[in-house]
Amino acid sequence: MAVLGKTHRTQAERREQTRTALLDATIDCLVDLGYARTSVQEICARAGVSKGAVQHHFSAKAELMAAAVEHLTGKLRGRLAASIAALPGGASGVAAAIDLLWEGYSGTLSTAATELWVAARTDPELREAIRPVDRALGRSTLEHITSIAGELPKERAEILFWLTVNLTRGLALDAELGGDPKRRRQLLDEWKRVAVMLYEDASP
Amino acid sequence: MAVLGKTHRTQAERREQTRTALLDATIDCLVDLGYARTSVQEICARAGVSKGAVQHHFSAKAELMAAAVEHLTGKLRGRLAASIAALPGGASGVAAAIDLLWEGYSGTLSTAATELWVAARTDPELREAIRPVDRALGRSTLEHITSIAGELPKERAEILFWLTVNLTRGLALDAELGGDPKRRRQLLDEWKRVAVMLYEDASP
Repeated sequence: MAVLGKTHRTQAERREQTRTALLDATIDCLVDLGYARTSVQEICARAGVSKGAVQHHFSAKAELMAAAVEHLTGKLRGRLAASIAALPGGASGVAAAIDLLWEGYSGTLSTAATELWVAARTDPELREAIRPVDRALGRSTLEHITSIAGELPKERAEILFWLTVNLTRGLALDAELGGDPKRRRQLLDEWKRVAVMLYEDASP
Repeated sequence: MAVLGKTHRTQAERREQTRTALLDATIDCLVDLGYARTSVQEICARAGVSKGAVQHHFSAKAELMAAAVEHLTGKLRGRLAASIAALPGGASGVAAAIDLLWEGYSGTLSTAATELWVAARTDPELREAIRPVDRALGRSTLEHITSIAGELPKERAEILFWLTVNLTRGLALDAELGGDPKRRRQLLDEWKRVAVMLYEDASP
């Protein structure tokens, strides 16, 4: 009985596994095909889930998309949480925090999110679904960052954070379009130097 | 005869007018509908041009897209050329140059270009067509900017320029997604302050 109990999954476990497979397949499709060519049919095929079954989990394509971004940021946050907690305080933590933000906002997350953001501009239903996820991500990352900002006044920490996020998003777009990696590295290094300087100027 | 000559357009003029109508309609479609829903049929309908006639001008959709970006940047460059030439030299020109870059890279050009860039990531033919146009725009803007950078060493001027371009692209994406305009204004002001400081530090 014990062996049988271990090999059989509960209904809740199966449900969760199907959901995860769908969300992973959604991110894969966005990265491989782009939003325009990502269909629910293709997602189901990659996840090995029937098209009927997906409707038990998500009532609309937009909802599936938003859940996929949330799922991806959740995984990422888990991966980065330890690194963020281990950041040194003060100026020496600033450069390391910028590296972590770049790591977080570039790569798969940035690619999938950019596909969705751009599509959302002309798709009100999708916009409605992903905006709260995007805002929640921004807020929670900001909280993490300000919690390790030490003596820096909150307003200064926020400005430094948002400058870094927007620069990083621009650089992530550049990376996707095959811009020069050497130049990106140079710009990120220069921004770290500047941010440390700004941090030191603003610290009491 | 003279009157007749003036009211009748030459074949070259008609050709040019059709081309311009197609390019303007392409930009309109990208901004209104996004790349995925922009069809050659819709572009022709908006331009008042038959679908057969478009093939006299552009052999492929990707070519039409690249020409549209080139057309838009050409118009923009014309509009900005006088402002750039009139920029004050030295540190006081830095903040004004950043305002001009923001003006250039945000709005219609940024919206249309972002649609194409993102689509190009998963569409090799489109990427092949728009990459040279994007690089040429970057190079020519950079030349304009370094020509007014005064005493600043070329390498420093380039780093300041590319940091500004990438930050601006990130902010333009934020604007398209309905981010807070007050925060964008604050970040741009802070970046101007920082850029002037960096300019002064690097000037001999």
